[in-house]
Amino acid sequence: MSKPASGDLGAVYLIPNTLGETSLDSSLPPVITQLVGRINHFVVEDEKSARRFIKQLCPERVIRELNIRLLNEHTKHEELETLAVPLKEGHDIGVISEAGCPAIADPGADLVRLAHQIGAPVRPLVGPCSMILALMASGMNGQRWRFLGYPPIEDQARKDFFRSIEKDIYSSNETQIVMDTPYRSQKLFDELLSTLRPETRLCVASALTTDHESIQSLLVKQWRSLSPSIAKVPTLFVLGR
Amino acid sequence: MSKPASGDLGAVYLIPNTLGETSLDSSLPPVITQLVGRINHFVVEDEKSARRFIKQLCPERVIRELNIRLLNEHTKHEELETLAVPLKEGHDIGVISEAGCPAIADPGADLVRLAHQIGAPVRPLVGPCSMILALMASGMNGQRWRFLGYPPIEDQARKDFFRSIEKDIYSSNETQIVMDTPYRSQKLFDELLSTLRPETRLCVASALTTDHESIQSLLVKQWRSLSPSIAKVPTLFVLGR
Repeated sequence: MSKPASGDLGAVYLIPNTLGETSLDSSLPPVITQLVGRINHFVVEDEKSARRFIKQLCPERVIRELNIRLLNEHTKHEELETLAVPLKEGHDIGVISEAGCPAIADPGADLVRLAHQIGAPVRPLVGPCSMILALMASGMNGQRWRFLGYPPIEDQARKDFFRSIEKDIYSSNETQIVMDTPYRSQKLFDELLSTLRPETRLCVASALTTDHESIQSLLVKQWRSLSPSIAKVPTLFVLGR
Repeated sequence: MSKPASGDLGAVYLIPNTLGETSLDSSLPPVITQLVGRINHFVVEDEKSARRFIKQLCPERVIRELNIRLLNEHTKHEELETLAVPLKEGHDIGVISEAGCPAIADPGADLVRLAHQIGAPVRPLVGPCSMILALMASGMNGQRWRFLGYPPIEDQARKDFFRSIEKDIYSSNETQIVMDTPYRSQKLFDELLSTLRPETRLCVASALTTDHESIQSLLVKQWRSLSPSIAKVPTLFVLGR
């Protein structure tokens, strides 16, 4: 990657984390280790897991000598500005999420916006993204697809949500990706089976990149006689034709 | 990754390729080299680029000793079944796209579906995905987003398409990702600028992961005084708030 051309501003490196217990060699390109070995300023979603991640990649680094700042859902708007100060002093910042790619479905995106505002370079790095791994493995349409995050909480709203996204599958052949917190994976699976049409295709992708990875892409009617073991397991659901 | 539990069937490994001229170390986890070093059956989108990729990763491999089969838009439905024969004989198959993650926006997905049908394990591997890199670097909403592929060709249909996806940004805060063939990147940029609302956010992410990588996320009205050099450069456009 080329050096930033933005004068003396530091760059924001978006550093992907692993997805749970897995070997670094199967999840991260070597450049990640090099970067984590030289960056001194980090903005992280969860401090404990970030420290463990840095130590795993670069055991020689002394964690207390690093400048590690938190950015999560509790971070106040006023604090955000102070997180960008190292950039203005010419220091690079590494952003690390609790799992997977930072700045997707985590507050890292706020720092990215701020970096663009002040003209600091933003460098996204390659790493595991559960939505993409699930989509690749689903065999469904990859020309048009959507990630919808968590479904609504309330029962009727959830049913309406599932029916509405299923409609988009048939009207525009758009693949739909949904998930919920791991402890609701089983509930979500049961609901999808009872709500979706028998001929809709459903890929259940759980524990991705770990030793317990399990991926199956079947029609809803085929799933009805099966019971995947996904209780409390991080699971992506891909719906399509 | 655990060994497949599907009797004697081989597994389908979805092997990401780089995105253009870039170092392997910044794009691919070491496990990819190990896999390409031991797999003897490949199904590829483009033979020439796949050979180059295999040689780059594993110079010691003798290409003519490998079983390399084509799967692209010209592949007939009847041929597809024959591509899966090695799986039934217990051989693993590596699927390689021309660029980035296979089975997303390329015919590799057809082989993935067939693998699920016969019960062969499907193993998606970590690698560069331009849509995800662009989304991470955009600073926009990562809780809900959509990849729409190429816009329609016809002028009025294109305009309607841009207006319709912009509507979704404001109605559901859904981030929209579009692209076109590299030689139409500049045209697409010009059209977005003349069609979108001034306050809509537009991230232009081009030549991702290469030495010429350039990423800027600004409001449409800010873009109007700028001219990014994206003519004939592979470019992703991320639209949001």
